Amino acid sequence: MLSKDINRRPIGVFDSGIGGLTVLRDIAATLPNEDTIYLGDTARVPYGSKSRETIIRYAREVAYFLVARQIKLLVVACNTASAFALDELRSTLDVPVIGVIEPGARAAVRATKTGRVGVIGTEGTIRSSAYCKAIKALNPAITTFTQACPLFVPLVEEGWAGDEVTAVIAARYLSGLKTHDIDTLVLGCTHYPLLKDTIASVMGPDVRLIDSAEATAEEVLRVLSANGLANPGGKSASHAFFVTDSPERFLTVGSRFFGPGLEKAALAAVGA
Amino acid sequence: MLSKDINRRPIGVFDSGIGGLTVLRDIAATLPNEDTIYLGDTARVPYGSKSRETIIRYAREVAYFLVARQIKLLVVACNTASAFALDELRSTLDVPVIGVIEPGARAAVRATKTGRVGVIGTEGTIRSSAYCKAIKALNPAITTFTQACPLFVPLVEEGWAGDEVTAVIAARYLSGLKTHDIDTLVLGCTHYPLLKDTIASVMGPDVRLIDSAEATAEEVLRVLSANGLANPGGKSASHAFFVTDSPERFLTVGSRFFGPGLEKAALAAVGA
Repeated sequence: MLSKDINRRPIGVFDSGIGGLTVLRDIAATLPNEDTIYLGDTARVPYGSKSRETIIRYAREVAYFLVARQIKLLVVACNTASAFALDELRSTLDVPVIGVIEPGARAAVRATKTGRVGVIGTEGTIRSSAYCKAIKALNPAITTFTQACPLFVPLVEEGWAGDEVTAVIAARYLSGLKTHDIDTLVLGCTHYPLLKDTIASVMGPDVRLIDSAEATAEEVLRVLSANGLANPGGKSASHAFFVTDSPERFLTVGSRFFGPGLEKAALAAVGA
Repeated sequence: MLSKDINRRPIGVFDSGIGGLTVLRDIAATLPNEDTIYLGDTARVPYGSKSRETIIRYAREVAYFLVARQIKLLVVACNTASAFALDELRSTLDVPVIGVIEPGARAAVRATKTGRVGVIGTEGTIRSSAYCKAIKALNPAITTFTQACPLFVPLVEEGWAGDEVTAVIAARYLSGLKTHDIDTLVLGCTHYPLLKDTIASVMGPDVRLIDSAEATAEEVLRVLSANGLANPGGKSASHAFFVTDSPERFLTVGSRFFGPGLEKAALAAVGA
């Protein structure tokens, strides 16, 4: 895995839709030499309400699409797929596979001083207890408190991340967690980094926010270095985008997640 | 089609998920003698972002499931499926098929005096222009104004229909329509009847709200009568529920839509 050829291959990133673009954005910022290929499985979004078996099948199909494009590392930038399909992908693919849950859990365990950690996410992620299990596996002494915030994703997709309505809704969702005296809060959904300022102002300066997207980008940096896979650079990095349904909405809404540089997305035939 | 046997058969109602339960509720209220079978295609929700071909395939699979259960009439209680699959279902099934768009459009055309009609719905329904086309087909002199309200569905599913946050969001979404001096507003989404009070108080007493669910129930009444298919009654009506993914969330959230009587739902193998 040390040949120059492999080093220059792209990183593959996939999500059920748009949210994983926050992870991609942090990867691009943390690793400016790396080319990436992103796939949003927009024809089959959301994954959260589907069964474990279905998620594993979807994840396998998407991973094969990216592996066929010669990626050197796969990032599963989707909480549901990270919770259900990571073991399967790791056992069948011959590239390193990184999910979003383990890096977020590790960062939370490192950050907490009081051992009282909150986790917010979609209904599906919270019901799966994936973050709590990952945190407990690292340190069983930590107490976790959870809150599903179902309106956060549609609010972000509507472009209302900085809106006063969103601040009111955030205050309501987070009021329970505030009574539990946590010192660390995991943003357990790839959409939530866009709400970081709002959530921070509700929780106050004593609560450390853990951004899973950021933590995942740092994990990618570590794994590339450890495997001697980092791109030595020398030309500006390229970012390619694929979707499984009409690119229109992906481009409009996705720009708020990724910023400039998301101008076109090709249609990918995955699991058709 | 006049045998007593056929009259006593149930009405089939389907939707991509939970929203169609408002249509079912109005059918049950308007036609208290009728048995019903409801199918929510919760494994494949939402339909709104999927292609025409996919929607037609889904609708056909769901319709066959219901027809195999001896329904005497099919209600497509889903805006997307009504827009894309109605012709296909009508040409292949030998029972009457009623969608939600035509009844809503007809009621709006009857109600308007100024010829200025507003339509609200999901992004997909508004983009499809299905209501505007149906209204124009009935009366080309009517001017239509549209507004997508993407947060209404998640707000209703969160149980915040009567909440002050929802009132603030409704006021914002509807402010544009208010400047257009409409006298009639079509609630073009099966979730919106739960927001009727909020929307009415934003629009004021001079705007008549058209509830597609109500209009569809009245259409079912008319078609059953015209075809001599009404159930003569004599026993209390039964309502059976099927879903294509885990019933848990359907039952919790669905109760807010249908009211008491939604206690269990069976898993249907559709398009597996």
